[in-house]
Amino acid sequence: MDSAAGTNEKVGFNSWCPFLISDSIQKLKDFAQKIRKIGKDDPRRVFHSLKVGLALTLVSIFYYVNPLFQGFGTSTMWAVLTVVVVMEYTVGGTLSKGLNRAFATLLAGALGLGAHHLAAVAGDKGEPILLGVFVFMLAAMATFSRFVPEMKARHDYGVTIFILTFSLVAVSSYREEELIKLAYRRLSTVAIGVTTCLCTSMFVFPVWAGEDLHMLVAANLDKLACFLEGMGVQYFGEKMESGSLEGKSFLQSYKTVLNSKATEDSLANFARWEPGHDRFGFRHPWNQYLKIGAVTRHCACSIEALNAYISTLQQSHQTTTDLEFKQMVQAACVEMIKETSKALAELSSSIREMKWSSTVGKHHAMATEAANRVKALVPAENSTLLDVLISATTASLVTEVVRCTNPVIAAVEELSRLVEFKRPEHSRKAGAESPPHVVIVIEK
Amino acid sequence: MDSAAGTNEKVGFNSWCPFLISDSIQKLKDFAQKIRKIGKDDPRRVFHSLKVGLALTLVSIFYYVNPLFQGFGTSTMWAVLTVVVVMEYTVGGTLSKGLNRAFATLLAGALGLGAHHLAAVAGDKGEPILLGVFVFMLAAMATFSRFVPEMKARHDYGVTIFILTFSLVAVSSYREEELIKLAYRRLSTVAIGVTTCLCTSMFVFPVWAGEDLHMLVAANLDKLACFLEGMGVQYFGEKMESGSLEGKSFLQSYKTVLNSKATEDSLANFARWEPGHDRFGFRHPWNQYLKIGAVTRHCACSIEALNAYISTLQQSHQTTTDLEFKQMVQAACVEMIKETSKALAELSSSIREMKWSSTVGKHHAMATEAANRVKALVPAENSTLLDVLISATTASLVTEVVRCTNPVIAAVEELSRLVEFKRPEHSRKAGAESPPHVVIVIEK
Repeated sequence: MDSAAGTNEKVGFNSWCPFLISDSIQKLKDFAQKIRKIGKDDPRRVFHSLKVGLALTLVSIFYYVNPLFQGFGTSTMWAVLTVVVVMEYTVGGTLSKGLNRAFATLLAGALGLGAHHLAAVAGDKGEPILLGVFVFMLAAMATFSRFVPEMKARHDYGVTIFILTFSLVAVSSYREEELIKLAYRRLSTVAIGVTTCLCTSMFVFPVWAGEDLHMLVAANLDKLACFLEGMGVQYFGEKMESGSLEGKSFLQSYKTVLNSKATEDSLANFARWEPGHDRFGFRHPWNQYLKIGAVTRHCACSIEALNAYISTLQQSHQTTTDLEFKQMVQAACVEMIKETSKALAELSSSIREMKWSSTVGKHHAMATEAANRVKALVPAENSTLLDVLISATTASLVTEVVRCTNPVIAAVEELSRLVEFKRPEHSRKAGAESPPHVVIVIEK
Repeated sequence: MDSAAGTNEKVGFNSWCPFLISDSIQKLKDFAQKIRKIGKDDPRRVFHSLKVGLALTLVSIFYYVNPLFQGFGTSTMWAVLTVVVVMEYTVGGTLSKGLNRAFATLLAGALGLGAHHLAAVAGDKGEPILLGVFVFMLAAMATFSRFVPEMKARHDYGVTIFILTFSLVAVSSYREEELIKLAYRRLSTVAIGVTTCLCTSMFVFPVWAGEDLHMLVAANLDKLACFLEGMGVQYFGEKMESGSLEGKSFLQSYKTVLNSKATEDSLANFARWEPGHDRFGFRHPWNQYLKIGAVTRHCACSIEALNAYISTLQQSHQTTTDLEFKQMVQAACVEMIKETSKALAELSSSIREMKWSSTVGKHHAMATEAANRVKALVPAENSTLLDVLISATTASLVTEVVRCTNPVIAAVEELSRLVEFKRPEHSRKAGAESPPHVVIVIEK
C-alpha cells in the first residue's frame, strides 16, 4: 500500500477531477433515488407538498389584486404566515392548529385590548411599566399552563399563539393609533389563512389522521401475525431448529410495533378534531384504538421474549433426542403459533374491513385447545413433574433477564470509555476491567 | 330512588346554589393542587415560565424606548414573534430553533430578493404570475424535503421558516418599495429575538437536554432494578407466592421504560445542539445513550414477560409440593434476581456519577453463576430431562403469546361493537358471538 501511495503522489488535480465529478454524480443519483423512494412509498406526500404550494399561492392573490390588498394592507402578511404554520399533513392536524390559532388570536386580542385600556389609565410614564408587567405575568402563566398534560396534548399551539397575540397587541398598542382597526384586520387575515388551509386540506386529496390510525393499528396486528407465521415455518417447521432466526426480515418488522405508541397517540389526538368522514363517524371511538395498540404492544413484548429465548437456544448446542414428550409438545406449539397467527391476521383484516370475522374465535379456540393439550401432557396427579416444569420455566425467564443485562452492561461500559468515567484505583492496577460477556443458556 | 327524586322536585335554584358554589370551590382547589404538584415535581418548570416572561419583557423594551423603536419601526414585532416561538424548555431546543430560524431567514430572504429581481424582468403583468410560480414551486419542494427523515429530525422548523420568509419577501416585494431596508430590519430584529432567547435560556437557570437525557437513562435502569428488587421480595422472598403482583406500585414504574423511546430521541436530538457544559463535553457521545436506552427497553420487555408469566401462575391454583429440585431452582432464582437488580442499580449510579463501578461485574458474575447452577441441576448425561425442560419452557412462552392475544381480541371486539362492524349472517342468528375469554395456564 505504501508503494502504491508513492506512485500516486504525482497524480494532480486534473486526474482527480473526473473521479470527483463521477463521485458527486453518484451521490446525486443516490439522493434522487432516496427522494423518489420517499414519494413512491406514500404518494400522498407528493400531493401534500403540492397542496401547501397551492394554499400559499391562493392567499398570495390577496397581495396581487388591488382591491383586496387595499382592504387589509400589510396585514395580508398574516394570511401568508398563517398558511405556512397551520398547514399540516393530516386534516386533523390542520384543524387542530387552525382552530387553536383562530380562537387563541380572538381571545388574546380581546385581552390585549383590555390590557391597553387599563394601562392607559396609568398615564404616559406608567403605561409601558404596566404593559410590561401584564406581558410578563400573562406569558409566565400561559407558559406554565403548557406543562399541564391535557393542555400540552390539545392546546399547546393555541397557548403559543395566545402569548404571541397578547404580547403583540399589548406592546404595539403603545405605538399604534388605530388599534381596533389593526386588530380587526389581523383577525380577518388569520381567518382567511385558516379557511384557506382547511379548504385545501379537507377538499383536495384529504389525508385523515383517523384513517391512518385505523390502518396503523391493523398493520401492527398484521406484523405480529407475519412474525408468528414466519417463525412457525422457520423454527418449528420442517427446517426445524436449523439456521438462526436473527437477520430474517420478518423478524425486524414486529419490532417497530414496540415503539408505535408516540405515533398512535399523536394520530389519535388529531383524529379527535376531524369531522365524520367516509366510514368514520364524528364520535368514532378513537380511544379504543389506543387500547388495542397498548395490548398489541404487550403481545409484541411477549413475542420478543419468545424470540429471545429461541435465539439463545439456537446459539447453544442443539439437543437431538427424539423424545415422544418433546415431539408432542412441539406439535402443540406449532398449532398454537399457527392458529394465533391466523387469529391476529383475521383481527387485522376485520379492523381494516370493519367487518367482524367469526373465524377469529375459532382460530383462538384451537390455539387454546393446543395449550390445554400441553397441560394435559402432565397428569394432574403428577404434581412433582408439574413443579419441575414451572420451576424450570421461571428459571429460564429469570435467566433471560440476566442475559438481557449483558448488552446493557456492555453499552454502559462503552459509554464509560467514550466519556472517560472515573475508574476505581484498584481496577486501574489490575488493567482494564471489562464486564464479562457471558451468554447464559440452559444447555447440554 | 324514585321517591327521593319526587321529594327533590321542589328543590329550586336557591337550594342548589350553595351546592354549586361548594362544588366549584372544590374543583378550583383540586385544580390548584394539580398546578402546585406540577411545579413541585420539577421546579425548573416555574423558572422556565418566568424566563419566557423575562425574555418577552426584554424584547418589548424596543417598543417603549423611542430611539430603539425609530431604528426598526414596526419590524420590532418580529423580535417579539421570534421570542415567543423560539423559546423552548431546554437550551438545546432553543438553540436548535433559534439557529434554524436565523439561517433559514437569511437564506430565504436572499432567495426571495433574487426571485423579486427575476420576476421584475417579466414586466407589470408577468410579475405576479412569475412570483406565484416561484412561491408554489419553492413551497412544494421545501415541504417535500420535510419527509426526508434527516431533515425532519434536525431542520423541520428551519424549513417552515424558510417557506415563510421566502413567501413573505417574494410576495410583498410586489408592494414594497424599500425592499432591502425592510429585509435588513427584519433580519436584525429576528437576530435580536434569537439572541435574547439564547441568553435567557443559557445563562438564567439553564435546563440542558443532555443532562435530562443522562438522568433519564440512569433513572430507567433504576426503575428496572427497583422492580426486580421488589419482585424478589414479593414473589421469591418470605411471603413467597402469596398475594398478586398486580397493583403494586413498583410494578407500574418499569412500564414507563417501555415507552421512553420518543422522549429519549427528542432529548438526544436537542442535546446535539448544546455546547459543552458541566460534565458534558461538546462532542459527548449522545448516540451511546440511545443505544443504552434500546437495550434497556429490551431488558424491560424480558422483565415484562417474566412478570406476565408469574402473574398468570399466581392466578392459577398454587402448587405446594416441597420438592428439593424446586427449592434449589428457586434459591438460584432469588440469587439471580437479587444480583441482577444490584448490577442494574450500580449501572444506574455509575452513569449518574460518571464513575465506573467495579462491583457491576461482580454482581453480574454472581447472577451468571446462579444461572449456571440451575444448568448444573440437570446432569449433562440426562439429555432427556433437558429436552423436557426446554420443550416445556418453549411451550410456556408460546402459551403466554396465546394468552396475550386474549385482550387483543377483546379490545378489537369492543371496537367492533362501538362502531358496529358488519357481522357475518350466521353469527347473527346464533346470537352475539363474543370471543372466548380463556386464561390458559399450565396448572394442576
